[in-house]
Amino acid sequence: MGGSKIFDPPPKYSLLGGSKIFDPAPKYNLCFVCSVVLNMLLVVYLFVGDTKWMPSWSRMAAMEAEAVAAESCSGHGRAYLDGLLVDGMPVCECNTCFGGPDCSQISPDCPADVDSGNPLFLEPFWMQNAASGALLVSGWHRMSYSYNDHSSVSGELEKHIRKLHSIVGNAVTEGRFIVFGTGSTQLLNAAVHSLSLANLSSRAGVVTTKPFYPAYKTQTDFFRSVDYKFLGDTSMWKNSTDGNVSIIEFVTSPNNPDGLLKQAVVKGPHAKAINDHAYLWPHYTAIPAPADEDLMIFTLSKLTGHAGSRFGWALIKDEAVYDAMSTYASQNSFGVSHDTQLVALKLLKFVVQGKGREIFDFGFETMRNRWEILSKTLSVTSRFSIQEIEPQYCSFYQKVRDPSPAYAWFKCEREEDEDCYTVLRAAGIITRAGTLFGADSRYVRLSLIKTQDDFDLLIRKLNILVSEEDGAKTM
Amino acid sequence: MGGSKIFDPPPKYSLLGGSKIFDPAPKYNLCFVCSVVLNMLLVVYLFVGDTKWMPSWSRMAAMEAEAVAAESCSGHGRAYLDGLLVDGMPVCECNTCFGGPDCSQISPDCPADVDSGNPLFLEPFWMQNAASGALLVSGWHRMSYSYNDHSSVSGELEKHIRKLHSIVGNAVTEGRFIVFGTGSTQLLNAAVHSLSLANLSSRAGVVTTKPFYPAYKTQTDFFRSVDYKFLGDTSMWKNSTDGNVSIIEFVTSPNNPDGLLKQAVVKGPHAKAINDHAYLWPHYTAIPAPADEDLMIFTLSKLTGHAGSRFGWALIKDEAVYDAMSTYASQNSFGVSHDTQLVALKLLKFVVQGKGREIFDFGFETMRNRWEILSKTLSVTSRFSIQEIEPQYCSFYQKVRDPSPAYAWFKCEREEDEDCYTVLRAAGIITRAGTLFGADSRYVRLSLIKTQDDFDLLIRKLNILVSEEDGAKTM
Repeated sequence: MGGSKIFDPPPKYSLLGGSKIFDPAPKYNLCFVCSVVLNMLLVVYLFVGDTKWMPSWSRMAAMEAEAVAAESCSGHGRAYLDGLLVDGMPVCECNTCFGGPDCSQISPDCPADVDSGNPLFLEPFWMQNAASGALLVSGWHRMSYSYNDHSSVSGELEKHIRKLHSIVGNAVTEGRFIVFGTGSTQLLNAAVHSLSLANLSSRAGVVTTKPFYPAYKTQTDFFRSVDYKFLGDTSMWKNSTDGNVSIIEFVTSPNNPDGLLKQAVVKGPHAKAINDHAYLWPHYTAIPAPADEDLMIFTLSKLTGHAGSRFGWALIKDEAVYDAMSTYASQNSFGVSHDTQLVALKLLKFVVQGKGREIFDFGFETMRNRWEILSKTLSVTSRFSIQEIEPQYCSFYQKVRDPSPAYAWFKCEREEDEDCYTVLRAAGIITRAGTLFGADSRYVRLSLIKTQDDFDLLIRKLNILVSEEDGAKTM
Repeated sequence: MGGSKIFDPPPKYSLLGGSKIFDPAPKYNLCFVCSVVLNMLLVVYLFVGDTKWMPSWSRMAAMEAEAVAAESCSGHGRAYLDGLLVDGMPVCECNTCFGGPDCSQISPDCPADVDSGNPLFLEPFWMQNAASGALLVSGWHRMSYSYNDHSSVSGELEKHIRKLHSIVGNAVTEGRFIVFGTGSTQLLNAAVHSLSLANLSSRAGVVTTKPFYPAYKTQTDFFRSVDYKFLGDTSMWKNSTDGNVSIIEFVTSPNNPDGLLKQAVVKGPHAKAINDHAYLWPHYTAIPAPADEDLMIFTLSKLTGHAGSRFGWALIKDEAVYDAMSTYASQNSFGVSHDTQLVALKLLKFVVQGKGREIFDFGFETMRNRWEILSKTLSVTSRFSIQEIEPQYCSFYQKVRDPSPAYAWFKCEREEDEDCYTVLRAAGIITRAGTLFGADSRYVRLSLIKTQDDFDLLIRKLNILVSEEDGAKTM
């Protein structure tokens, strides 16, 4: 057998330093060594490295979720796991005014819709932090009505909520009981119901200061209880409460719609307050000091942006009120979905782990930028105005910070523009009428917390409106 | 350079058929070929085979869930993703009467607790079908208050619910509106509230037939509405309704606690019924024909066993009632958690895909076996009795099937055993007293839908009780 020449060295080709066994066949040698090195790399990749773990029963669920998330929808929409499938492919659900299979088409005459308080400005944050927000729910997750301690409240979630308040410094949780609700919506009426139990002979009166979040009135009216009724603005009750009427005051701080920090105004032995702190987060306001009221309500919606998850909580000083509100949650819906509690825990774990900096920096920067752009857009006109919010010291950021409210409380200043909603609607902007907040029709609320597309379209429409006015002036 | 001998053939060792290039070095050759083959296998394994897909951002979530699920807890418990961690390891949460780090220790004197209607008998089903029940929720899943069609209801979930009813044949969905609730609990009061809106001058009366599910009374009393009040048993209203009183009748079919199929008994122009069909599934009852009432309520709890998810739905014929119930759900909690709706969709997809056979076969077999064992245990005594349920034709199974009720409606027959709850409590069995169901204290309800451990312990305690009685007789 000839051919030994094929294997003759030049020894310089020997990768393994010319040991005899490889000497006779350097090219073959090289192939073999490469092959062995590739073996080793593949084995390491498969079984030793960062990717050694392969999903088992969770694999299909993870695949489905990643496939849906891979739909970019041109940045103007997203696909959902429970959305429609067409030909087996997830369908994009587009932002308002966008359409087409990949949401790349903008409808030319579509109005800017800044009506609802949908906190979608936080959606990109969770998309950017996909791994931190991802959650795999097993098919047998907490199927029982209760947690193992016979409570309807996840102990770990409660711990994380207390920790979060301590990090942000926006509420005192020491010596407070916690009740969970299906959104703060459920807790608002739970609080009214519970505070009215200790009322006097007549029905308790529910009051709040204009401009106010409309649900206080609509919800209180809706449930038609024998124990309470909505009485309107606080102005009648400011200095004294009638000896025969218990007053339950809703206090929203920062206020929806105007973003101002508020305190209860009704005083007296029969006055109780429900402090709605939905917006008391660094996204929207300076945190002056930890809130320390008897009954404080918070919601995940405006903290992480998960309005659709329906999760809220109340911090309660008085045990009897805590018992009554727990009973309400139980009689009403047998507590809060365990799936939702698991989602909330996952999100709050991430928030708490970074001491809140990531989400609050993102939220604050976004909202401040929007406020600046809106303010600048309106600075060239005297026809419209928005509320003034002074820079204020924030104990979370430990510095004076610029305003970044969730809503603009927008006023039509011209005498003839009595119906501000209609004025803006004619200009292609859908707002929420001030009258819904118990205020004058010269006011409307503009939501600044929706998607970037919604905000951009608002600014475009406002610019047109303002420049038309300039044009009119010039003419 | 010597050593060429190392590469001398016997050609029979040549794997590639003795072609010249490999001839000179058969052992080396063999190694090389093995290495190349290994590479090919590894590459195929990694990129071509069933496992080609590797999770990206979902990886950590999938790992966490699988790690938690890997805790076997001796088959007498399970670890949860939101449970405690000790030294980074998930902690087992044990079934009642079991303890120790791996739930392997049984507490000797622990009572059998068959009080609650916790449907944990279905937990093993979802553990056995882990891949089918697994769900990966992204951090940006449906953050908005509403679905893209401005509804608070997942269209895909609604479709699957209709499909499920059509497969099971337990309810007519054609021409019906669907409202979702945070458990059927929320829908019960939503229905009372909505039906009472069209009432006469006086408050509507809420009635039901004894023995009845206690929440009808406690919930109706709790909300203290000006529009309705609980009036008790139907017996007073059976044949005629007072011209001035609207009657809202709760009808539970199959009934909780006794498992019997029921129909409304109050008739007349001002009588309306809320048909609670929580247990109208092949697990628990023969399905005689599709239910076709005006207002029917169902719940995920007793269908898939996910009581903790808080998801229910109502099928409604009348549009005004549908509108009113939707408004209730909106005013009360702004709809149902989107996470929960996603979970429900995942579970129902699996149920529907197999035309329900897998879960209903599992559920029916389990419940029938339990009923047989309980019946046999009690057959040797006349001191206690349980309700009789006749075998009945089931349109789902298309045959006559044995009884398999969710609860035993258990009676203490001896004259001196007036307080049956106390008799059983003394024997180490925690039941739900019949008085809570509006019935005599000789009755208690035994829940048969809890874990296998709970059921086994019940049978053990009953056997002791029955054999003690035998002993007493013999003495």
